[in-house]
Amino acid sequence: MSKILITRHVGDHAMNILKSSGLELIVNPEDAAPSRQWVLKHLADPDVGAACIMHSQPSDKVDEEFVNTCNANLKCVSTFSVGYDHINVKAAHARGIKIGHTPGVLNDAVADITVMLVLMTLRKVGYGIDLIKRGDWPSLPWAPFVLCGHAISHPGLTIGFLGFGRIPQATVERLLAFTNKTEPANIIYNSSRRRDNQDQIDADFSQKYGIQVRRVEKDQLASQADILIVLCDLNPSTKDLVNKDFLAKMKPSSILVNVARGPVVNSEDLYDALKAGQIFGAGLDVITGEPNIKPDHPLLHLDNCELQS
Amino acid sequence: MSKILITRHVGDHAMNILKSSGLELIVNPEDAAPSRQWVLKHLADPDVGAACIMHSQPSDKVDEEFVNTCNANLKCVSTFSVGYDHINVKAAHARGIKIGHTPGVLNDAVADITVMLVLMTLRKVGYGIDLIKRGDWPSLPWAPFVLCGHAISHPGLTIGFLGFGRIPQATVERLLAFTNKTEPANIIYNSSRRRDNQDQIDADFSQKYGIQVRRVEKDQLASQADILIVLCDLNPSTKDLVNKDFLAKMKPSSILVNVARGPVVNSEDLYDALKAGQIFGAGLDVITGEPNIKPDHPLLHLDNCELQS
Repeated sequence: MSKILITRHVGDHAMNILKSSGLELIVNPEDAAPSRQWVLKHLADPDVGAACIMHSQPSDKVDEEFVNTCNANLKCVSTFSVGYDHINVKAAHARGIKIGHTPGVLNDAVADITVMLVLMTLRKVGYGIDLIKRGDWPSLPWAPFVLCGHAISHPGLTIGFLGFGRIPQATVERLLAFTNKTEPANIIYNSSRRRDNQDQIDADFSQKYGIQVRRVEKDQLASQADILIVLCDLNPSTKDLVNKDFLAKMKPSSILVNVARGPVVNSEDLYDALKAGQIFGAGLDVITGEPNIKPDHPLLHLDNCELQS
Repeated sequence: MSKILITRHVGDHAMNILKSSGLELIVNPEDAAPSRQWVLKHLADPDVGAACIMHSQPSDKVDEEFVNTCNANLKCVSTFSVGYDHINVKAAHARGIKIGHTPGVLNDAVADITVMLVLMTLRKVGYGIDLIKRGDWPSLPWAPFVLCGHAISHPGLTIGFLGFGRIPQATVERLLAFTNKTEPANIIYNSSRRRDNQDQIDADFSQKYGIQVRRVEKDQLASQADILIVLCDLNPSTKDLVNKDFLAKMKPSSILVNVARGPVVNSEDLYDALKAGQIFGAGLDVITGEPNIKPDHPLLHLDNCELQS
């Protein structure tokens, strides 16, 4: 093995690590997916011992064709993604090819976006931007809390999570840098089921973060959270989980931030709740039907809904 | 003293503290500034011993008229603001009235906004929102780092501050929750002058934050920072400090975030630098001429400039 095939530039920092291996790098020169032909041609090169591939490039699919084309010395394929549904793991293993992926690669990025959306939603940033772009800034009347929901440093804030895996936990670590020190925030979360040792799990979390952390049922999560962050898997039990009934239980001063998958939150019900002022605002990193969102989508035309692509 | 005059609702949390005093509260019932007449009428009430006022309400100006009208028992006036240029302190003191203000009230809010703008600028959020609203989301090509500048968790990031008072320090505490743990960020800053005990000051900061912190000259600040945050006072020596020459020294991958006063950054020079891609992006909480910003303002029409009102 003397060459590594890289189907897309993976950023200067990672590229420098790859270069420091001393091996020859065959790098797709375009800032776009390569052709399937380009990938297969280089896979056939007997000096290529490893391939670094992408999830979202059709050229990089590890299927029977890929496995049958690659040279006998190919030892591993590593995908720059959490998911590996583009890889036929069984076929690869049958040929002795090891598969790598990057399960934590998005934890930081998603936790960062979550905090950003919380801050944006609490301050109606999208509405403020629209107001500036329309030339209406001078007509915004002064008020002590203009455009403001709860400050994130509000005393005794309750932060709720729907789902409490690695990304929500990385988010807690960030949020604690913002929350009140004198009257600390507390964390409530709902996970798919209550464990036998749930009290111990929650005691461990509470100790780790230095604030009260506890699992609650969905009704309590909805009714108690000032900031409610959706970060659970999408599956039949979570589809439309945040619906009309759930939203009706939330506080008028609360915000909802969805960083999971669009369909966990029912878009029509969310629109109605935001329009009626049932909750203060929503921040959406995801939305049902994305990316095919038309300019007339109702959620794009609210003063209290933040979106990011 | 049995009554407190409150010229504007100061939020439920603070109102509850005031209520718990057991004193009668005279609260402006409108979600708007009261009339000057309303304020003066209640000031004349001999039971009013204290007044809680606002900075940005003309009705609340503490001038000769205010001091001459208030009853002899008025003991203190407290303004819900950092600044107290609306108060004739000398005239108030001559009448034995004590003056209070809230010097730290904006530290948390401004530090929160600073982090929000850093995150928004690193991900071109405004451009992404425009793209969604135009219906162009489906045509955005996939790429591993689409719309992304440096991740805030980038190894060995250099974060620079122009000005290093209380708000920048509160910002550092928040940013450290996002930065890389293995290859930590480091902080550089420029303050108005180098102190005799500067090395000791910087050693103390470094120990406090657990990362390297040091004062540098302006040229180094411009050329070394990956994230440059402007949080200095506006005065003749800082007006237009971030100009063409300063921007030319910055890295193409860097971002500039201005949370100080608009005129510290020259808008025309910033536009040119952003348009030419001399820096990755800018996030502006303030802009010269605000709030009178017309819809055709050049900085509103860039893909790499985030604004917030």
